Amino acid sequence: MNSFGHHFRISLYGESHGESLGVIIDGCPPGIEIKEEDFRIDLSRRKSGAKGTTKRTEDDFPYIHSGVYQGKTTGAPIHISFQNNNIQSSDYKNIAQIPRPGHADFTAYSKYKGFNDPRGGGHFSGRLTLAIVAAGILAKKIIPHVKINANLTHVGGSNQIDIEIDKAIQNNDSIGGVIECTANNVPIGIGEPFFDSIESKISHLIFSIPAIKGIEFGKGFASAAMIGSEMNDAYIKAGITSTNHAGGINGGISNGNQIVFRVAVKPTSSISKPQQSFNLKTGEKQILEIKGRHDVCIALRMPVIIEACCAIVLADFSLGSDL
Amino acid sequence: MNSFGHHFRISLYGESHGESLGVIIDGCPPGIEIKEEDFRIDLSRRKSGAKGTTKRTEDDFPYIHSGVYQGKTTGAPIHISFQNNNIQSSDYKNIAQIPRPGHADFTAYSKYKGFNDPRGGGHFSGRLTLAIVAAGILAKKIIPHVKINANLTHVGGSNQIDIEIDKAIQNNDSIGGVIECTANNVPIGIGEPFFDSIESKISHLIFSIPAIKGIEFGKGFASAAMIGSEMNDAYIKAGITSTNHAGGINGGISNGNQIVFRVAVKPTSSISKPQQSFNLKTGEKQILEIKGRHDVCIALRMPVIIEACCAIVLADFSLGSDL
Amino acid sequence: MNSFGHHFRISLYGESHGESLGVIIDGCPPGIEIKEEDFRIDLSRRKSGAKGTTKRTEDDFPYIHSGVYQGKTTGAPIHISFQNNNIQSSDYKNIAQIPRPGHADFTAYSKYKGFNDPRGGGHFSGRLTLAIVAAGILAKKIIPHVKINANLTHVGGSNQIDIEIDKAIQNNDSIGGVIECTANNVPIGIGEPFFDSIESKISHLIFSIPAIKGIEFGKGFASAAMIGSEMNDAYIKAGITSTNHAGGINGGISNGNQIVFRVAVKPTSSISKPQQSFNLKTGEKQILEIKGRHDVCIALRMPVIIEACCAIVLADFSLGSDL
Amino acid sequence: MNSFGHHFRISLYGESHGESLGVIIDGCPPGIEIKEEDFRIDLSRRKSGAKGTTKRTEDDFPYIHSGVYQGKTTGAPIHISFQNNNIQSSDYKNIAQIPRPGHADFTAYSKYKGFNDPRGGGHFSGRLTLAIVAAGILAKKIIPHVKINANLTHVGGSNQIDIEIDKAIQNNDSIGGVIECTANNVPIGIGEPFFDSIESKISHLIFSIPAIKGIEFGKGFASAAMIGSEMNDAYIKAGITSTNHAGGINGGISNGNQIVFRVAVKPTSSISKPQQSFNLKTGEKQILEIKGRHDVCIALRMPVIIEACCAIVLADFSLGSDL
Repeated sequence: MNSFGHHFRISLYGESHGESLGVIIDGCPPGIEIKEEDFRIDLSRRKSGAKGTTKRTEDDFPYIHSGVYQGKTTGAPIHISFQNNNIQSSDYKNIAQIPRPGHADFTAYSKYKGFNDPRGGGHFSGRLTLAIVAAGILAKKIIPHVKINANLTHVGGSNQIDIEIDKAIQNNDSIGGVIECTANNVPIGIGEPFFDSIESKISHLIFSIPAIKGIEFGKGFASAAMIGSEMNDAYIKAGITSTNHAGGINGGISNGNQIVFRVAVKPTSSISKPQQSFNLKTGEKQILEIKGRHDVCIALRMPVIIEACCAIVLADFSLGSDL
Repeated sequence: MNSFGHHFRISLYGESHGESLGVIIDGCPPGIEIKEEDFRIDLSRRKSGAKGTTKRTEDDFPYIHSGVYQGKTTGAPIHISFQNNNIQSSDYKNIAQIPRPGHADFTAYSKYKGFNDPRGGGHFSGRLTLAIVAAGILAKKIIPHVKINANLTHVGGSNQIDIEIDKAIQNNDSIGGVIECTANNVPIGIGEPFFDSIESKISHLIFSIPAIKGIEFGKGFASAAMIGSEMNDAYIKAGITSTNHAGGINGGISNGNQIVFRVAVKPTSSISKPQQSFNLKTGEKQILEIKGRHDVCIALRMPVIIEACCAIVLADFSLGSDL
Repeated sequence: MNSFGHHFRISLYGESHGESLGVIIDGCPPGIEIKEEDFRIDLSRRKSGAKGTTKRTEDDFPYIHSGVYQGKTTGAPIHISFQNNNIQSSDYKNIAQIPRPGHADFTAYSKYKGFNDPRGGGHFSGRLTLAIVAAGILAKKIIPHVKINANLTHVGGSNQIDIEIDKAIQNNDSIGGVIECTANNVPIGIGEPFFDSIESKISHLIFSIPAIKGIEFGKGFASAAMIGSEMNDAYIKAGITSTNHAGGINGGISNGNQIVFRVAVKPTSSISKPQQSFNLKTGEKQILEIKGRHDVCIALRMPVIIEACCAIVLADFSLGSDL
Repeated sequence: MNSFGHHFRISLYGESHGESLGVIIDGCPPGIEIKEEDFRIDLSRRKSGAKGTTKRTEDDFPYIHSGVYQGKTTGAPIHISFQNNNIQSSDYKNIAQIPRPGHADFTAYSKYKGFNDPRGGGHFSGRLTLAIVAAGILAKKIIPHVKINANLTHVGGSNQIDIEIDKAIQNNDSIGGVIECTANNVPIGIGEPFFDSIESKISHLIFSIPAIKGIEFGKGFASAAMIGSEMNDAYIKAGITSTNHAGGINGGISNGNQIVFRVAVKPTSSISKPQQSFNLKTGEKQILEIKGRHDVCIALRMPVIIEACCAIVLADFSLGSDL
């Protein structure tokens, strides 16, 4: 369903090249100060413009339409929207018929029987993450004591990020990356055994973000190669273990240590190199050259999105607990 | 919440050392043949007894209490329960006070203010996965055309599984593993963009299984080190790509190729070596030696559980679509 | 869906003439004392045996299978079941083919394509309300300060209940009734504007009880004939109005006054008089004479069920608020 | 929660005197033709201007922001908004402190700790029903074979509607009414036994509409005064009964006959007569005279809202079934 969250709940709408996109946020407690200015830092972190990011620039101004009165949340649903201004749909003219490899063009066409909006990926576009970042800003205000921080740690398998980006630009190619996210000061006892573990909820939300192919908590995949006496975190006292291989979570529930997880971001699907595809209507093979404006490394713009996802999940849990 | 699924929905109950555990399955279509015998193969795959698995053996007989009439599902909720017979709770006597490293003892105690059932991990026990396997058997019957297969591919970072298991047994230690799951013949168009991608739903359910620390789809974490021209799957025709780096999913929706994912299973937390912990009531440090009967490599018993999770998600999507 | 509630959630299973029926209760806070004995009063209020009620008597012993440890709730799902012992399915032999007027036999057969369990109404039976009463007992313990009370106020349009019951017995007929339910000490501020008003949630649950045909809050249908200056409740002070025509609810939210609602219960559908029906398989007209054991006035056994519904809704709201 | 529906789902936002209000509609199938013009008839039925309705007139133009491409639904979420233009908030200046009897001013203030938007009832305003009517128009398009019709049958207890309205206007008072809604051609088998009966879902949605105090299906409250041999609808054949006392529903499921229900609408709470209230901040008693522009009989504008609720529920059920 197009809603996520049990107590703090978000619902999205919009398309990459439609008139606007936005989010309705339910369950936000009353009395929280919020103004357009509060959105600036996180929205600009998501913005393009830097090396390796797309040349499509939008002003991304957050319009607050409801749920805020005299500068404070009222407890009623909050609607925030963003206009799409800088649209060059002509770039996408032939996508309607020739699905781009790695994109959702083919699956969207199949699922929606050809009625989907194909321009710029339509509702499947990464542009929708703008609304998630906006919701994340409110989520962070609900749990001000929790400090969430995400960073790009690897690009192309290396942590010499600049070099890898340059290489990809020179090759007219794109490149993937890994983002690590941590959350400090999460109260002990957040999360549920079945089926809403912290990992379940975070992964659920994060896998709705385009381009994510993997997630791991604590030692993650490395733990599969470990032995129990290495992996187990010895207890120092309540809320503190000597190591943090579990990533701050036992049995789906926060244990007082830092929550840590990493996500794998695949290389941007849009590349300017010719690729093999086919015509959706005739079935004929066809070579596709994607014009448009694209990110070389979408992972560059991801950290703030991952933070938002983490904040949304933790705010949701937090509102449902008495911690 | 203690329910998972939108159209095919499961709700669990039970504890490791309680009287019984079970599942209510909602949304199962009427007219499906089901008898206790149908549960035998999958339940025995999950069972212990083989080298590297616990010596606690249960007969694991599935009692069907409702929702089945004259050997066929009726459309009403199906309740399946399992008795706990082979219980040695005395083994767990001191867990109530000394949390076992790597287990949920501490988080459960904290969350439930000391009222949780501590025996054998209570409701947090891997024994609850028995109910998930049972639900998976029904799920598989709902999508008989889909072939789901999970296997243990690595233990301790190696694929010489037997050798690694033997080593762990000799060292009185435990060891992790990686399971790969594939699903063939999934119809094109299953899954949703926001927020119920196939990856979102599968990871949500799988991360409620104890001991899972990571999941990746298709190329997964390897994709973060790839370039776009490698990663993108060229289209051969509708439903077939030349490679399958995406793991059968684009934009959260099945594309007709095989669905592939891998999960990381940490080493069993229970080991017989002494470990550092503390007393929940006094706060005093304490060295813990776990007696009990435990799996050396819980990943050995996992493949059928992962299959069940995959089947439950695909059956749920399938019942919600007209495909 | 077969689940009700957002924070305190119940899921049902079972059939009238199956082996057992029961409920899983999620979200019950830990540390609440509960023992089988606590169920006795409410379950006996629902029981048959009195004049005007069916001769099918069951011992209705509540088996608690999970979620309770050392006499207190643990926070994990609570499974309570009841055995069906006193079954005379031969009475229902021909129902499989000839739908009883006023019952769900025809709709269940149509919806479930003939696979439904037809014995005694199967999953549609009023016997399922036993599980709702059991859940209601726990709900009442969650909100001990709230006093809920339901009574049968009218039978056959009159409040001379005994006389009306006697008349119906003499005529081999059945008869309807009205139940009024009140809740005192409900904290101010429970309920939501859209879409989970108190009225929305109470009516949702109550209309899943067989035989309910109407519900009204406060002045209810009478308010449709009133003028505003009569209807409006003048404020005395916070939480107290001079009259209570609103039934304790404004804008879907409790206002501190007594919550009051009434439900209309139709006459029991099963009567021993011959009735016109048809054969589901052949389509032929057929006269049906219902044997079996039935209530003359099902409303007699309803008050405790209505109380349970009210308690479940208020407990659900209560756990979701900080009041 | 601020969402309603399982397959066809609506989420609302907005306030009476905010900048705009609207709805996100999820689950609408792709390929349905929709244009602003299609909203005209139903929106104008809800509009004010006629005798007995408020003088606040809005143009109520439906802006479609997403989910529609080239005149057809895409399968993505549909966002429809309405601007608030004709606002005279000065009329409401003192409401922030003096709750209007019969309104949600006091409960909203209490629940949201004084942070609610008090202007015109804020998010509690009947103006939000505009978004429900808009969603209803799409719902009707999903089930074009179903014919839904609602009418005002009584005002002030009489069916001489004009006379009663005139009387109320002359007395500077307001007056209640009863609306009857019917749905023809509903397929047999729509609805669920526990907990989503047709009655449960319709009443849930309808009781979120301000001013509704009661609902009854078929014979409703009259059935409580009937005997079984009168009440039971004899079967003529599949889908047709000789009478329709059940209102087209047995066991929560449609039986092929016309679905019939009635709702009680209380008199508009806003009247120009002086009423007793108190100051929320000081607690002092105070006499309140409401200025503003108000409906004498809000029931006059209700039929199309009730139709929309009925259509939303039936579309939701319909999308979840294979009928």
